[in-house]
Amino acid sequence: MIELQPIGKIISPYLEKAGTPIQMTGSETAGKIEIFKEYQEGLRDLEGFSTLIVLYQFHRIKETSLEVVPFLDDVTHGIFATRSPARPNRIGISILELMYIEDNMLHVKNLDVLDGAPVLDIKPYVSAFDSIENTRNGWLDKRLKDSDFKKDDGRFN
Amino acid sequence: MIELQPIGKIISPYLEKAGTPIQMTGSETAGKIEIFKEYQEGLRDLEGFSTLIVLYQFHRIKETSLEVVPFLDDVTHGIFATRSPARPNRIGISILELMYIEDNMLHVKNLDVLDGAPVLDIKPYVSAFDSIENTRNGWLDKRLKDSDFKKDDGRFN
Repeated sequence: MIELQPIGKIISPYLEKAGTPIQMTGSETAGKIEIFKEYQEGLRDLEGFSTLIVLYQFHRIKETSLEVVPFLDDVTHGIFATRSPARPNRIGISILELMYIEDNMLHVKNLDVLDGAPVLDIKPYVSAFDSIENTRNGWLDKRLKDSDFKKDDGRFN
Repeated sequence: MIELQPIGKIISPYLEKAGTPIQMTGSETAGKIEIFKEYQEGLRDLEGFSTLIVLYQFHRIKETSLEVVPFLDDVTHGIFATRSPARPNRIGISILELMYIEDNMLHVKNLDVLDGAPVLDIKPYVSAFDSIENTRNGWLDKRLKDSDFKKDDGRFN
């Protein structure tokens, strides 16, 4: 058993799962990440980075499953072959654009996270380490061109 | 408090922190991720993806700090402006190349993780979602060209 303490929380216009963008591409939504005061010292020099990796908990997910029909398909896949939230440990990753920092509040763009999600970590996204081009994307490759799948339809509870 | 259960563990040639590559760039190291049998069903269709996001615990870190001197610099920065392992919640992210899957064993390349690290999640890395180019990288920008910083020197305990 591994025990974590949230370091902050997401402040988002998305209050319900249905309607929340399912990936950061295409979302221009602005929002905030509140870092709890006791961790604020850890933000020093973060403002120099344009892009953040944010780890948070899918806190509204009550059930997990090892096989799911992901938003981007209509047949089942193993949960680890998807980005579905209904996964063991329920950790989400979002890559967000950092606009500016005001005290303990990060102002971000491209938000695709539900309001109130507990934040577990913030790391700088660095193209030299994190940008991989031309990945092979299994079942997803034939779906990526399909524009019908852009928002959470509320299928995961 | 958020409680997690490891879904597997890293099998790596790196047995000690000192000498472990500090980022995936430049590491060609092969290793394995053992997914525990009870989660194996979740791996279905993962083999179609070339690249994985692996979340794990920095299990050998005993102390965390909000300000650190990261491997890539010689002055302190806030922990969230670094990828240092000595962070709250001690979650690491590695982007690994998936070679093949044999039952519950993922054979991967570019490994930069210590042997025995508990694995928390596996997600497909998808260029269309996850590849961001030309990030602005704060204090790190002037260090990225410096080739003297490639391995853990054992500074974090």
